[in-house]
Amino acid sequence: MAQQADITAMRRAVELAARGLGATSPNPVVGCVIADASGHVVGEGFHQRAGGPHAEVHALREAGVLARGGTAYVTLEPCNHTGRTGPCAQALIEAGVSRVVYAVGDPNPQATGGADTLRAAGAQVEQGLLEAEAEAGNIAWLTSVRHGRPFVRWKYAATLDGRIAAADGTSRWITSADSRADVHRLRAEADAVVVGSGTARADDPHLAVRGIEGAVQPLRVVVDTEATAVQPGARVLDDAAPTLIAIADDAGTSLDGADVVRLPRAERGLSVPALLDALHARGVRSVLLEGGPTLAGAFVAAGAVDQVVGYLAPVLLGAGPNALAEAGIGTITEALRLDVTETVRVGPDLRITATPHLTATFKGA
Amino acid sequence: MAQQADITAMRRAVELAARGLGATSPNPVVGCVIADASGHVVGEGFHQRAGGPHAEVHALREAGVLARGGTAYVTLEPCNHTGRTGPCAQALIEAGVSRVVYAVGDPNPQATGGADTLRAAGAQVEQGLLEAEAEAGNIAWLTSVRHGRPFVRWKYAATLDGRIAAADGTSRWITSADSRADVHRLRAEADAVVVGSGTARADDPHLAVRGIEGAVQPLRVVVDTEATAVQPGARVLDDAAPTLIAIADDAGTSLDGADVVRLPRAERGLSVPALLDALHARGVRSVLLEGGPTLAGAFVAAGAVDQVVGYLAPVLLGAGPNALAEAGIGTITEALRLDVTETVRVGPDLRITATPHLTATFKGA
Repeated sequence: MAQQADITAMRRAVELAARGLGATSPNPVVGCVIADASGHVVGEGFHQRAGGPHAEVHALREAGVLARGGTAYVTLEPCNHTGRTGPCAQALIEAGVSRVVYAVGDPNPQATGGADTLRAAGAQVEQGLLEAEAEAGNIAWLTSVRHGRPFVRWKYAATLDGRIAAADGTSRWITSADSRADVHRLRAEADAVVVGSGTARADDPHLAVRGIEGAVQPLRVVVDTEATAVQPGARVLDDAAPTLIAIADDAGTSLDGADVVRLPRAERGLSVPALLDALHARGVRSVLLEGGPTLAGAFVAAGAVDQVVGYLAPVLLGAGPNALAEAGIGTITEALRLDVTETVRVGPDLRITATPHLTATFKGA
Repeated sequence: MAQQADITAMRRAVELAARGLGATSPNPVVGCVIADASGHVVGEGFHQRAGGPHAEVHALREAGVLARGGTAYVTLEPCNHTGRTGPCAQALIEAGVSRVVYAVGDPNPQATGGADTLRAAGAQVEQGLLEAEAEAGNIAWLTSVRHGRPFVRWKYAATLDGRIAAADGTSRWITSADSRADVHRLRAEADAVVVGSGTARADDPHLAVRGIEGAVQPLRVVVDTEATAVQPGARVLDDAAPTLIAIADDAGTSLDGADVVRLPRAERGLSVPALLDALHARGVRSVLLEGGPTLAGAFVAAGAVDQVVGYLAPVLLGAGPNALAEAGIGTITEALRLDVTETVRVGPDLRITATPHLTATFKGA
């Protein structure tokens, strides 16, 4: 049975970890709290950006000599390998920390083993405190390690009757300014934002993060199978963020100067697994899929949606395109079933977060 | 500034009133609490069924002589007219109640004036305590009096992407058993349950209330414009509840023995205002519209939806019919905008209740 002080310290570590979301890929987000021998918090830290110090190092620096004989609370098993920074397990041992409590084991074969190293050095090591919270906070990175592809969060904004635009295609605005601002937070948390050619043609979207100080801009990705949707002068081609255009391997000439990746075709459009492979190879660990309905349908059909975030506006239209198109589901028993994990009011709208029952259905390349 | 005891008593009266929902039409639901001269609750009552005693009479009977010098808390202004029961204002005066607190004024021209009668008899009369709660609890009846037509609650059950069935028409089950049980509560609260010919053909629905003890069965109404959807042996024709078939005035022969009303046609289907007039004339003060999408679209187009209750299942389909079809909305500025008044988890599903910004847009007959 965990002591309240342990829980409080780990909860703080989970909070700290979340500050790194969107800035640490291909590394995980990690938070660390150091308490001295008498239980007072003497150091805090989180992993701020790939290549920078790990959470434990930040917290140990703040704690200084007070770490000796104390406890380190870490959201993820301290790493055991020397990458751009030294192994954290070793740093904790050198600082004289006598107890290490971590929430989630490191599934990364290159980094795991930290707990064993700590134990061998005589530290008391405990695993599992607030594991579910810490896992949820690191779900993008954990999913990417477990499945070898980026975590995919599909975001849509629709009316109560599931429409993303009116019969004439107009859609400004269905959801509120509050919801649209909230989407920028989702973009800031993601390594890449992905749209399809329909959205590129209809909306000429910019896709960069606005209004969030210090945000790391995601890679903007347009799935433009025929290499015809993104035209010179498109807003997505400005220098606000990097941009990648994914086109079919047999598509025509592409845009001068744009970063282009050629991928195999699927039955309709491009191969989703091939796209995710290409993004993973570029260090992308989390994708915010912003639709539209055709591309979202292809991702659902490929079993490649890990989380759904729907902004539901209290609006009725009765006509117009749906949030999700053809996803390879012909009858009710084939429906993709999810669990609602959160429902929140965002201005006048509702934000519903849900997770598919089985994420293990990914149909790999 | 109301005293806490007054608020507590009125809140209890609002709770009591709700017990009558579905059983009092064409009368309102009303709750009453009597406190004696020292503030102790000595009587409670609610209007249980049309033709039965009013709430005040029940509460006064329970209070007996203890009502003398006390306070009556009533959710609706005590009536002033002699219908099947005597006027409540007079009963309160005769019982010696010295103070009457009511939440909502009676908009019914035949019954209003109770407050004046009480004042003339020397009672202290106050109006407006918990007015919003009491109004919400009586919204069906109040709407019917104000607009001269039944209150319409549109209920739908859909996936997150707004579908009511899969591509092949299968829909058992999209929402959970919990949600389906909750719909029976909505039916029990309504005077009539209305479906269209598409639903009648596809589902052969029963539409009666099941699983709610003491529920008054609503009138089952099928809008069967061409008089072809309801066939002999249809489940809706059993004797579990009364049934009305609404057909076009120029439609062919209708079912033997069924209660049929002939109504004028609209551009598509039957005239919604004419249907609501016909129901109102039969004492229906609240309608639960259970769709399907075509009929719901006609009601939305007619400005005849007063409340929307959506059961949203965490399911994705990507194809299949939408919850709402053609509602006369061509562009985003014409969208029907609502306010979400409640969001509740019902089993794995979400129940969202919303009210259109303007209910004054009803396009009457």
